[in-house]
Amino acid sequence: MNKDLFCVIMAGGAGTRFWPVSRSSFPKQFIDILGVGKSLLQITFERFARIVPQENIFIVTSSEYKELTLKQLPQMKEENVLLEPARRNTAPCIAYANFRIQQINPNAKIVVAPSDHLILNDSIFIDTINEGFGFVAENDCLLTLGIKPTRPDTGYGYIQFDSSIQFDGFQNLSGVKAFTEKPNYDLAKFFVESGEFYWNSGIFIWSLQSIQQSFKEFLPDVYSLFNDNADKFATPDEAETIAKIYPVCENISIDYGVMEKAKNVVVLGANFGWSDLGTWNSLYENLDKDCDNNVVDGENILLYDTKNSIVNAPSDKLVVAMGLDGYIVVDTKDALLICSKSDEQKVRTIVNDIKTKTGDRFI
Amino acid sequence: MNKDLFCVIMAGGAGTRFWPVSRSSFPKQFIDILGVGKSLLQITFERFARIVPQENIFIVTSSEYKELTLKQLPQMKEENVLLEPARRNTAPCIAYANFRIQQINPNAKIVVAPSDHLILNDSIFIDTINEGFGFVAENDCLLTLGIKPTRPDTGYGYIQFDSSIQFDGFQNLSGVKAFTEKPNYDLAKFFVESGEFYWNSGIFIWSLQSIQQSFKEFLPDVYSLFNDNADKFATPDEAETIAKIYPVCENISIDYGVMEKAKNVVVLGANFGWSDLGTWNSLYENLDKDCDNNVVDGENILLYDTKNSIVNAPSDKLVVAMGLDGYIVVDTKDALLICSKSDEQKVRTIVNDIKTKTGDRFI
Repeated sequence: MNKDLFCVIMAGGAGTRFWPVSRSSFPKQFIDILGVGKSLLQITFERFARIVPQENIFIVTSSEYKELTLKQLPQMKEENVLLEPARRNTAPCIAYANFRIQQINPNAKIVVAPSDHLILNDSIFIDTINEGFGFVAENDCLLTLGIKPTRPDTGYGYIQFDSSIQFDGFQNLSGVKAFTEKPNYDLAKFFVESGEFYWNSGIFIWSLQSIQQSFKEFLPDVYSLFNDNADKFATPDEAETIAKIYPVCENISIDYGVMEKAKNVVVLGANFGWSDLGTWNSLYENLDKDCDNNVVDGENILLYDTKNSIVNAPSDKLVVAMGLDGYIVVDTKDALLICSKSDEQKVRTIVNDIKTKTGDRFI
Repeated sequence: MNKDLFCVIMAGGAGTRFWPVSRSSFPKQFIDILGVGKSLLQITFERFARIVPQENIFIVTSSEYKELTLKQLPQMKEENVLLEPARRNTAPCIAYANFRIQQINPNAKIVVAPSDHLILNDSIFIDTINEGFGFVAENDCLLTLGIKPTRPDTGYGYIQFDSSIQFDGFQNLSGVKAFTEKPNYDLAKFFVESGEFYWNSGIFIWSLQSIQQSFKEFLPDVYSLFNDNADKFATPDEAETIAKIYPVCENISIDYGVMEKAKNVVVLGANFGWSDLGTWNSLYENLDKDCDNNVVDGENILLYDTKNSIVNAPSDKLVVAMGLDGYIVVDTKDALLICSKSDEQKVRTIVNDIKTKTGDRFI
């Protein structure tokens, strides 16, 4: 494998949308949410290990998840787990990885990806990433992967592509007109029908040189904080340096801080079957269903007159459901959620309510 | 208290209709199903201890529930717990108690009652039982308590009373025309509208002499088995005797074996607020509801947009339910039931299905 290829997996999220299975001490990326025997992080790691050398894969996560990460990925060297002492969104996370990689290989080409998404077709995914690597090796561009939308989903960001900007030999690559955060339903419908929009996957490919240049230009304060300490990375002083600069870093996403401002952004349209698995509903959409359209994860789940539902329980728990249509049932040792699928977006709000009413113990 | 008054509490049931809270190793009568801090058996015992001397209260139960019974009722003498080595329905159970009591006080007046019913008004109940004791002390009759029906319930037995047979000084006492087992809905409706029917409560009052005479007449085989060993009761040989005769006893209910055949049956109409608590629905009907008509038993239950439902969970479990209308949700350590209220009569069938599919471990 090409030793210039690097991967940064962002695994710092503390998502509550998969509550009660995800908890702040055990968020979604560490869970076997697909019921396949591996966590999303493990699946993501293994997928990238087929594209870049394993020693070039870095995971950026919160320091509280260090043990969990190393436990789930015993094949990783501890030094490849970059620990954030505070949560500062994706831009500082990427900056940290950039400065570490710069000390190792200034000629690096990097793919940056979330740790908790679903990719259905591995081989198309690998081809797509390699196509992106090929492009950024030759072009000073920031490449983002766009997913052809299949429905007017209001939970995703959208990228309007500019098909007047084309690149020889890269058929699915276009320029970018605009990024739009989660639109309302009518707007999302318009986007999808226009045929000019992709979903924003949050997967980026660029050369180290290009992304460093963009940070310098669009996030100069963040860049300086790191650059003033550039020689400390990949040394025993790194942790101390991060502890000092990270908390004073701006809290800002790479999309807002860089991608929406840079002129050299391109989007590679991809079609590998993708979901950000942001909600139980999106999980439902992506998993195999039984003949009554139920998605079942658990070893002792008995359904009677139940359809269009998702039921998830520990393997040693017996669940008997009768007369449910369109419900989410998620049982864990200390918490049970039963919720109509149409109410699912309220789970986030409810988690806050739970915090108010019962404190932190169930969160 | 009158030392001639005795009470026999039947506590051998292995009911599965309150699954998953009730289990064969921990049936309904031992559960705090009302959420008041006491099991139905404890409540029943305490209620009768206000009517008859405590040392005259006997509990007949399966030998497998001996420890559970003594643990829940530490005030009982062990010898007052009569243990059945096999399940033989109510007639043999009552015969056993009769022969024990005969050795203690041949002049006994006895009230026989299930251990797992709901009585809402204790003082009316006590007055009713005392009225019954007063009557059977003077009359060679088998008295059963009838409950004025409030709805055409198809889960109950019905007693057609005969108002042409009246008794001086016992205004609510009548003769009996017929017993009817669980009728269909139309018949139940007809019964209720006719004003001539009571629900059969399964609570009986009689003198020892009258009930022994009836056994002799209508269940001579059962009577002989016990009577041939009459001198063994209340002696160290009792357990051995029971082990020998109980398994060969006919498996028959007191209703079918005696009450439907005897000519000296009377019914005392009562109005103390009664339910046999045979199902989660009947429990729902009888418990306090919140402003959305939900019955909640648990310390950490959060309901959103949920109504007409019953939610029952251990105190340390958080339950979040959203968008439920008319459901039963019962969670326990190893099993969860979610069931629409209209499907509840199927729980019994399901318990059999569970047995087929997962063996005994959840039953």
